Amino acid sequence: MSKPVVGIVMGSSSDWPLVKKACDTLDKFSVAYETRVISAHRTPEEAIEYSKSAEGRGLKVIIAAAGGAAHLGGVLAAGTVLPVIGIPVAGGALNGLDALYATVQMPGGVPVATVAVGSAGPVNAALLAVQILGTADEELRAKFHEHKKELKDKVVKMNDEIHA
Amino acid sequence: MSKPVVGIVMGSSSDWPLVKKACDTLDKFSVAYETRVISAHRTPEEAIEYSKSAEGRGLKVIIAAAGGAAHLGGVLAAGTVLPVIGIPVAGGALNGLDALYATVQMPGGVPVATVAVGSAGPVNAALLAVQILGTADEELRAKFHEHKKELKDKVVKMNDEIHA
Amino acid sequence: MSKPVVGIVMGSSSDWPLVKKACDTLDKFSVAYETRVISAHRTPEEAIEYSKSAEGRGLKVIIAAAGGAAHLGGVLAAGTVLPVIGIPVAGGALNGLDALYATVQMPGGVPVATVAVGSAGPVNAALLAVQILGTADEELRAKFHEHKKELKDKVVKMNDEIHA
Amino acid sequence: MSKPVVGIVMGSSSDWPLVKKACDTLDKFSVAYETRVISAHRTPEEAIEYSKSAEGRGLKVIIAAAGGAAHLGGVLAAGTVLPVIGIPVAGGALNGLDALYATVQMPGGVPVATVAVGSAGPVNAALLAVQILGTADEELRAKFHEHKKELKDKVVKMNDEIHA
Amino acid sequence: MSKPVVGIVMGSSSDWPLVKKACDTLDKFSVAYETRVISAHRTPEEAIEYSKSAEGRGLKVIIAAAGGAAHLGGVLAAGTVLPVIGIPVAGGALNGLDALYATVQMPGGVPVATVAVGSAGPVNAALLAVQILGTADEELRAKFHEHKKELKDKVVKMNDEIHA
Amino acid sequence: MSKPVVGIVMGSSSDWPLVKKACDTLDKFSVAYETRVISAHRTPEEAIEYSKSAEGRGLKVIIAAAGGAAHLGGVLAAGTVLPVIGIPVAGGALNGLDALYATVQMPGGVPVATVAVGSAGPVNAALLAVQILGTADEELRAKFHEHKKELKDKVVKMNDEIHA
Amino acid sequence: MSKPVVGIVMGSSSDWPLVKKACDTLDKFSVAYETRVISAHRTPEEAIEYSKSAEGRGLKVIIAAAGGAAHLGGVLAAGTVLPVIGIPVAGGALNGLDALYATVQMPGGVPVATVAVGSAGPVNAALLAVQILGTADEELRAKFHEHKKELKDKVVKMNDEIHA
Amino acid sequence: MSKPVVGIVMGSSSDWPLVKKACDTLDKFSVAYETRVISAHRTPEEAIEYSKSAEGRGLKVIIAAAGGAAHLGGVLAAGTVLPVIGIPVAGGALNGLDALYATVQMPGGVPVATVAVGSAGPVNAALLAVQILGTADEELRAKFHEHKKELKDKVVKMNDEIHA
Repeated sequence: MSKPVVGIVMGSSSDWPLVKKACDTLDKFSVAYETRVISAHRTPEEAIEYSKSAEGRGLKVIIAAAGGAAHLGGVLAAGTVLPVIGIPVAGGALNGLDALYATVQMPGGVPVATVAVGSAGPVNAALLAVQILGTADEELRAKFHEHKKELKDKVVKMNDEIHA
Repeated sequence: MSKPVVGIVMGSSSDWPLVKKACDTLDKFSVAYETRVISAHRTPEEAIEYSKSAEGRGLKVIIAAAGGAAHLGGVLAAGTVLPVIGIPVAGGALNGLDALYATVQMPGGVPVATVAVGSAGPVNAALLAVQILGTADEELRAKFHEHKKELKDKVVKMNDEIHA
Repeated sequence: MSKPVVGIVMGSSSDWPLVKKACDTLDKFSVAYETRVISAHRTPEEAIEYSKSAEGRGLKVIIAAAGGAAHLGGVLAAGTVLPVIGIPVAGGALNGLDALYATVQMPGGVPVATVAVGSAGPVNAALLAVQILGTADEELRAKFHEHKKELKDKVVKMNDEIHA
Repeated sequence: MSKPVVGIVMGSSSDWPLVKKACDTLDKFSVAYETRVISAHRTPEEAIEYSKSAEGRGLKVIIAAAGGAAHLGGVLAAGTVLPVIGIPVAGGALNGLDALYATVQMPGGVPVATVAVGSAGPVNAALLAVQILGTADEELRAKFHEHKKELKDKVVKMNDEIHA
Repeated sequence: MSKPVVGIVMGSSSDWPLVKKACDTLDKFSVAYETRVISAHRTPEEAIEYSKSAEGRGLKVIIAAAGGAAHLGGVLAAGTVLPVIGIPVAGGALNGLDALYATVQMPGGVPVATVAVGSAGPVNAALLAVQILGTADEELRAKFHEHKKELKDKVVKMNDEIHA
Repeated sequence: MSKPVVGIVMGSSSDWPLVKKACDTLDKFSVAYETRVISAHRTPEEAIEYSKSAEGRGLKVIIAAAGGAAHLGGVLAAGTVLPVIGIPVAGGALNGLDALYATVQMPGGVPVATVAVGSAGPVNAALLAVQILGTADEELRAKFHEHKKELKDKVVKMNDEIHA
Repeated sequence: MSKPVVGIVMGSSSDWPLVKKACDTLDKFSVAYETRVISAHRTPEEAIEYSKSAEGRGLKVIIAAAGGAAHLGGVLAAGTVLPVIGIPVAGGALNGLDALYATVQMPGGVPVATVAVGSAGPVNAALLAVQILGTADEELRAKFHEHKKELKDKVVKMNDEIHA
Repeated sequence: MSKPVVGIVMGSSSDWPLVKKACDTLDKFSVAYETRVISAHRTPEEAIEYSKSAEGRGLKVIIAAAGGAAHLGGVLAAGTVLPVIGIPVAGGALNGLDALYATVQMPGGVPVATVAVGSAGPVNAALLAVQILGTADEELRAKFHEHKKELKDKVVKMNDEIHA
């Protein structure tokens, strides 16, 4: 298996079913990744250690999934020069609005690339990682063109179905 | 001057005018404090270092003021057993709603004692610190009784003024 | 059994399953507490009486859980110099956003230390009470260090599980 | 001057310019009223004392104006069988959304008749008080018919103005 | 049976289970009422006719329950000098937030006395009607004192239950 | 001058500066219109009378501008088979969010075609009226094609300006 | 079967059950329509092609249903001079609030006639299309008068039912 | 001057002052870029043409800034395999909440990397573009390390200033 170029971090194993969708998407593009449960609040030093060592270990992109006061993306972004993609996890009393705001409203200097709160989030986080890697990888871009074609075909098929 | 028992941390010097109100309130109660500008996203290691060393350096309470994706309170709470009070700073496009959610919606295990977003926040953060210290300090509690009496007197005076 | 140092007040017995989590957490730290159903709107005099007598009866911290126009924390805070921790209870048409705002947005002079609306709230309220008591109790702080270690271990275990 | 039948309570003298509009409206209907600055959080016992004595002192309706975690209406409603009208005062970081929720979301058993947050609030609170008193006062109802006619005339006049 | 003094109007028969709670509450106080399904948007003339004739037919208070763009309370208030109580009905994609705003944010001149969105709404609307009628009915006020006592007893009983 | 085919109704003359933009837009397309100040709450019968007579008087489209609990569009839509376009007027403590919800969340059976809250609203309401009339008027559609061309030219010009 | 005059576009076949309600409503008025699954993000060129060709193909009105970042209505409106009606589809973590804002907040120049988010949306979109076509079709207006009569009859029937 | 690798698109020249900050940031990193005013709603074909040709013209990343129903990012993302970064522009009645939701809530398959609504947005969009380019450019990563050092130095300097 190849050396991982994407690091996927989740704040809790309860986020795993969601994160699994990101993994499946990366698998589809044959992008190697690693997964970790690291908490910004319960294992803060591991979080910093992870993001500080990421570049040296060959990672190119980090994906972080967290809910509530979702600090994970921001904490990881604090420690690395790599692009960090944040997945705000829906759930709880505010149903992910807290996670969305806590992920996207980063201060000037330290961006987190935020994707949708809800089911589209993990898939799009993985696709964004592929697009980022694709900026220097023509083959990946070609696969992404395939992906866009599949999206279109799926819509055409849906159109056929409702008229069947 | 006494050794500080309250550590006040702000994410940016732009928060200083707000934080100054917390300092003034602590001064009124003769509670010694220290102030620091530390950013969860720009100086993350200093943040962890600060919170990890706080107990050993004699601090009893930490107050954190931050806006936007306000991770400062949470990051400090991650590193210490001391109570951490979070002041969500208003401002920006979401006017502090992001800061409120990012401060108060902490996951189970790592609380941040959150006070009001807006002008009441820093004063109440300081008063809460005094109340916390007062749990083991009868003199401080006596001063807080005075504070409550002043609040009442002020209301009575306001009542007189509108009838003057 | 020891004399209670934490008073836990809920607005309705329907809040009991939630409040039970706070009790379990305090039990884990061997912190003695008492529980009461007192309503800011249905038994207002009992509320004031409770908070006014709290200090004299040896309580150190008060925890209040309420939903909707959650006035309980504020009403208790009005009558005491002790720190009051507010748990906004989720539910109803606004799903606890009303409770969050009504608990946290206290005016200058009378703070309520607010924790998360949702399931993390009662656990974190209890932990915050432990941290407050810990400011003058080295043994409790030691237990809280244990608690933080358990949090870390749990994350490590979760990490192992998703890779099992 | 007549004995007051409406009691207007505000949480702070800063609410006075707003409350003044309610007074002016009551004056127009020759309804006698009294005004007080009483705070649910700074003078809680006065609040309860005020509402408990209101019926005996001849008041028929209570109007309460407060902002932020606006508990004043609820605290007064807790202590009386008289109808309590709540004016949520706009302002602060959440611009009165907190006051609106804290006023209107009262639990079953203890209503607060809530009017608009913003400039229409105090006028409408006074008009609602007049309507309430009017349920047993034909003369007041006649005056309210006049008021409604004036509203219509004003609209007609506005229509003329934009076509002038 | 007595002549109705309270008119309860709902926008749809789907609101009936909710409105039923208001009826039950009025029954408890032996306050006579009538119920109608009238829609501000589907039977607008009936709405105006109803509110214009209400005073003449002996009604003292009108209660209106509606969801979504809840115009019913406002439309009824437009046509009468009687106090109109609005119940914002929860449900739909915005879960009653639309109904709350559409009911409470009335312009200056035409108040609607708004109660809580959610299950407390219909009970509190009825209680508010009782309080309004009670301003001129000592017997009703006495019954409301009983009601308040029952509320207290219920809290005491709840307190006993969680300690049983 | 031609007989009006668009009726523009505003709840208050304070909405006139906003409504003026709709008039200017209709002027540009040489669409004849009439303007009225009619209030859903202060002149409810005029509102119904206006909408009931609109079709007979030759109007084809009605535009309604209102803020707060913005019932005007809904009340007019209740009385006519003509399409009603609602402009939610920004302002007040909730800054037009109340007006947006009260305008757009109409119940099944009685639509109000809602445009943006904010400055784009009145212009787009007029453009929508033109589009509606254009469904049976080729000349108007040709003018709208011109309008779209102007929009494009304006963007091209803006592009040139930032590169000048 | 007649040539379609209304084009109904949905972003995904998952919107079909909702869109079906719009079709049923148009059927009731014997208005011919066509349905398409076209995605603003997955088949953008088809979207533009569809809206650019709509006028030439004899369509008079376009209805677009989409959820989340609901760009479909706006993208179609960009390419045509026909009126475009937007149905914001509820669902997802923000439950359609995102779809409502993304549909209604169109910039000046390019309106989208927005109907309610939630179950009333598709029915009202179809009714609005009928009203638009009715501006040049007396027979359709007559049918809409029938529709309004049915709405009234239904309310009368509901009133009878709750009194049965 | 180098061939642009970042394409910055704004919906209106009114966004230029904001977008200028992104340009300044890219200048600091010596990253070549081009700027365009293209509107998703007024020049939709140019938008699609721009994004479809971007990859072929050598662009690596696209940045899109738009307010209100901010479809620009999504429309550009629809037409390219390059990563698209969305800047939600604050302003208008909803102050950018509409732009935030319309930018971030993209459906599965077509991500837009969203940064903060408010003043941090354009700077962070540019920094994110640098990070993305940096995944294949060691020199850029080195510059980003410098950037992170400057952020730290700035915090240290701020800390010194408040203690001066």
